[in-house]
Amino acid sequence: MKLFRYGPAGGERPALLESDGTIRDLSGVVQDVNGASVTPDGLRRIAARDPKTLPVIEQVDRIGPCLSGVGKFICIGLNYIDHARETGNQAPVEPVVFMKATSAIVGPNDNIVQPRGSTKLDWEVELGVVIGTKAKYVSEARALEHVAGYFLANDVSERALQSEGTGQWTKGKSCDTFGPIGPWFVTADEVPNPQALRLWLDVDGVRRQDGTTANMIFSVAQIVSYLSGLMTLHPGDVIITGTPAGVAQGMKPPAYLRPGQVITLGIEGLGEQRQTVIADSA
Amino acid sequence: MKLFRYGPAGGERPALLESDGTIRDLSGVVQDVNGASVTPDGLRRIAARDPKTLPVIEQVDRIGPCLSGVGKFICIGLNYIDHARETGNQAPVEPVVFMKATSAIVGPNDNIVQPRGSTKLDWEVELGVVIGTKAKYVSEARALEHVAGYFLANDVSERALQSEGTGQWTKGKSCDTFGPIGPWFVTADEVPNPQALRLWLDVDGVRRQDGTTANMIFSVAQIVSYLSGLMTLHPGDVIITGTPAGVAQGMKPPAYLRPGQVITLGIEGLGEQRQTVIADSA
Repeated sequence: MKLFRYGPAGGERPALLESDGTIRDLSGVVQDVNGASVTPDGLRRIAARDPKTLPVIEQVDRIGPCLSGVGKFICIGLNYIDHARETGNQAPVEPVVFMKATSAIVGPNDNIVQPRGSTKLDWEVELGVVIGTKAKYVSEARALEHVAGYFLANDVSERALQSEGTGQWTKGKSCDTFGPIGPWFVTADEVPNPQALRLWLDVDGVRRQDGTTANMIFSVAQIVSYLSGLMTLHPGDVIITGTPAGVAQGMKPPAYLRPGQVITLGIEGLGEQRQTVIADSA
Repeated sequence: MKLFRYGPAGGERPALLESDGTIRDLSGVVQDVNGASVTPDGLRRIAARDPKTLPVIEQVDRIGPCLSGVGKFICIGLNYIDHARETGNQAPVEPVVFMKATSAIVGPNDNIVQPRGSTKLDWEVELGVVIGTKAKYVSEARALEHVAGYFLANDVSERALQSEGTGQWTKGKSCDTFGPIGPWFVTADEVPNPQALRLWLDVDGVRRQDGTTANMIFSVAQIVSYLSGLMTLHPGDVIITGTPAGVAQGMKPPAYLRPGQVITLGIEGLGEQRQTVIADSA
């Protein structure tokens, strides 16, 4: 299934995208697309409902973040060898774990706001993972049983804040609008192999990133298992799994984002995003 | 006011501690002590209610985390010069920002579970700050207007996970039970100067930390202002503001925590915590 959320920011309603493109409102079935609805029980409840009995939505003006009430927004850094190299790093020997503020989450096509004073605004197309059942000390072999589904993410980053300050990356990853997720939450049954997905990103129509999740250093299963050894993962927690080469920081000279530029990105089977960079008017 | 939460983990109810020590149940006034109840409106609603009309609670078997539904759990590192030095670091020129997983939050007297394989389990007494109104690009002069209140925290840390791996600290800060908060959420009016609070921590009755928030490198007002320039702070977000010298890592040789040890800690006016370290039986 493909679930999503539509409507104004803060007032989104849950919806289902059928394979023929028909959009159905899910408000009568679940309160929202959130931790409760991505559990096995929640997904069974949605799947059990004949879509033809749900109201058709003719027009969607805005798509919201594909998940609400995210508990933890965990990020894995330097998880593609070509990206690690372009940023001057070695391949990590264990997953690089940091967090993005959940307040950074926005819809897939919302504007990206360049924070005041930002000079090194960058992009990162990433595969996102949604936890569906509680996971603690889970083996790699059983890790994917805890994954409810997948989504497309742009791990928007401000490199000066990320790397030139104290060494802790959270600052450069957590600004408002730095976490577009969606358009869809795609249930795991529609993604038989999360390690065989093409992912790409364009800036103003020029291809900048073009990779495959086959090149991850740590697979989704390894990441979920590893994280579950550090902390309990709960339904509605999300993990974004790193980006392939092709970010601005890796260009010579770096072509960091400027207001007015348009970013488009996608992952095979998970949909596309389109963001315009704007200056912060706050 | 001093608000808190009592009852079994996951089933806590909101309560009020009166100055004479009487405990009153707040379930009839607010749903929980959370982001909604620490807003100015929420606090006014509680303050408007005559405590004598609320049910008295004779016995509390467990105190829960002082706040539920925490959005962001932001931490400031190396914010006392003596602690920065004991860990071999310079005084930071800007706040060191990282995040703890919200799933690490536990009650003030719950056990601290040493994760599998942990060898460098450490303590950090810290002043916690609760955001009460949305803050974005807030000046230092007005920053404290956005603070709803304060609490006591133990920023439990696993130093091997924190520092010997990838350089990103989140791993060593986010394990389950690494975030005891409380006992009380103390409203800001009861803390006229957050930069004049004594804070201390004992291990098995031996004093290990004994400091004052007067020695913070970045004050609460500076931290809130700084963070609000990076990201929007929302009601119910919390910030813990760093620890003074005296952690295990700074001892020669380091006396890291072992199962069976008991940690007690406190901050003037904010109450005390008591935790027993136990091995992970999961």
